[in-house]
Amino acid sequence: MASPHTIQLRVYYQDTDAGGVVFHGQYFAFMERARTEMLNALGYDLARFAESQGILFMVHSLAATFHAPARLNEIISVSAEVARMRRASLEFRQRVERGRELLVEAEVTLALVDRVRLKPARMPQELRNALDPS
Amino acid sequence: MASPHTIQLRVYYQDTDAGGVVFHGQYFAFMERARTEMLNALGYDLARFAESQGILFMVHSLAATFHAPARLNEIISVSAEVARMRRASLEFRQRVERGRELLVEAEVTLALVDRVRLKPARMPQELRNALDPS
Amino acid sequence: MASPHTIQLRVYYQDTDAGGVVFHGQYFAFMERARTEMLNALGYDLARFAESQGILFMVHSLAATFHAPARLNEIISVSAEVARMRRASLEFRQRVERGRELLVEAEVTLALVDRVRLKPARMPQELRNALDPS
Amino acid sequence: MASPHTIQLRVYYQDTDAGGVVFHGQYFAFMERARTEMLNALGYDLARFAESQGILFMVHSLAATFHAPARLNEIISVSAEVARMRRASLEFRQRVERGRELLVEAEVTLALVDRVRLKPARMPQELRNALDPS
Repeated sequence: MASPHTIQLRVYYQDTDAGGVVFHGQYFAFMERARTEMLNALGYDLARFAESQGILFMVHSLAATFHAPARLNEIISVSAEVARMRRASLEFRQRVERGRELLVEAEVTLALVDRVRLKPARMPQELRNALDPS
Repeated sequence: MASPHTIQLRVYYQDTDAGGVVFHGQYFAFMERARTEMLNALGYDLARFAESQGILFMVHSLAATFHAPARLNEIISVSAEVARMRRASLEFRQRVERGRELLVEAEVTLALVDRVRLKPARMPQELRNALDPS
Repeated sequence: MASPHTIQLRVYYQDTDAGGVVFHGQYFAFMERARTEMLNALGYDLARFAESQGILFMVHSLAATFHAPARLNEIISVSAEVARMRRASLEFRQRVERGRELLVEAEVTLALVDRVRLKPARMPQELRNALDPS
Repeated sequence: MASPHTIQLRVYYQDTDAGGVVFHGQYFAFMERARTEMLNALGYDLARFAESQGILFMVHSLAATFHAPARLNEIISVSAEVARMRRASLEFRQRVERGRELLVEAEVTLALVDRVRLKPARMPQELRNALDPS
């Protein structure tokens, strides 16, 4: 599989809630940023992919554990790694860390779906090769 | 003009930030809810309108003043009122209140734009009549 | 256990993404609304609870499956039901439905934590009784 | 005044809506990122500032014009520049650009407020000097 892709980001007020920490749903937005940057680094622009291939990536399922919260103005890293590829889906393993401390971990499964009918679509071979160059 | 339309909503954690109050950008989401409900009450479903007429409502400009913040779990009211109609735009006056206390006020101008080219589109006469039944 | 609590809500532009459907992370915000309304209906205002008892509810883990997407301007229902109670945590079963169609289902576990130290806090007996009146 | 501070960012699905472009309220989140990075670059960590000085920066008013929309996966730049300083407030001029094309421009006025009472607080001389080194 392609090696993990990691981005750094800062926590802003917009990401936090009145508990003083990042709102739990916001970590899924952070994780989407890491997946998108991973695909961009491999040459896959999701917007153009939707246009040219008529295929959307939709989140099909996810499971997450929140170990410790990130706080305002901290710099955190968010990684994405392909854990498994199937005919019409992709499973990512993702981690949010502050330095060496694991804050959140998740498994996120994306389904490739036909843009118009929203039915499963087969993963193009070219994308398969990019994600698993071995 | 059609009379003002008011919705009630509760402030949840998702709406607040680490300052303990509603994140300022979130009031624009609240205001969008009030505008949408106003249009729905007049028989205008924005999603179908985009489909059938090929017209989107896009925010063209806005000005807002934040007088006092809303806090977690409070019930607030958000109103929308058409202040002016032009060939291809609509100006709304909007208020966020907690009881009788004015929290935020704004003027929000929407442009009607062609969905594909994103160029100005003329307001359909039927919508004009619904918004200004006088 | 207390009976399930269900709220109705409309999908606005703010909830959707360029795929034309609700952004996956946004369902967790919808689910938080249902949990909060359930607690309010039982007499628990989370904001005052945090003040008076010094206890926050933080999401500890969750697992969700997305069966079908909600779209712009649709009315959906979101339910919350306590599936299990432990010393310092609460597990909710949650469903998002459009009419009788199940769109999203999730299990969301909240930990009660001391507001200052962010360490586990024991659930007050009174809350325990409210959630499980049997 | 301190020179303008500019950040680059990518547009993700989370930032867009069913219109296929960035949701209007989201630009205010982008602008907050630019202001925060500007202050961090000058040595001001807003989280610590709130702790040590008991002062929050709250948005008091803003006015924005949306000239053209940003789209999925585009890289845009967002700048912040102090336009005016008063005893207890700061006015920023902000621009969102895609290459040389101006997408959004705004004036955002922040009030410095006492964290506990939410009343106006005087700007510390040190911050004043950092923002206007002339």
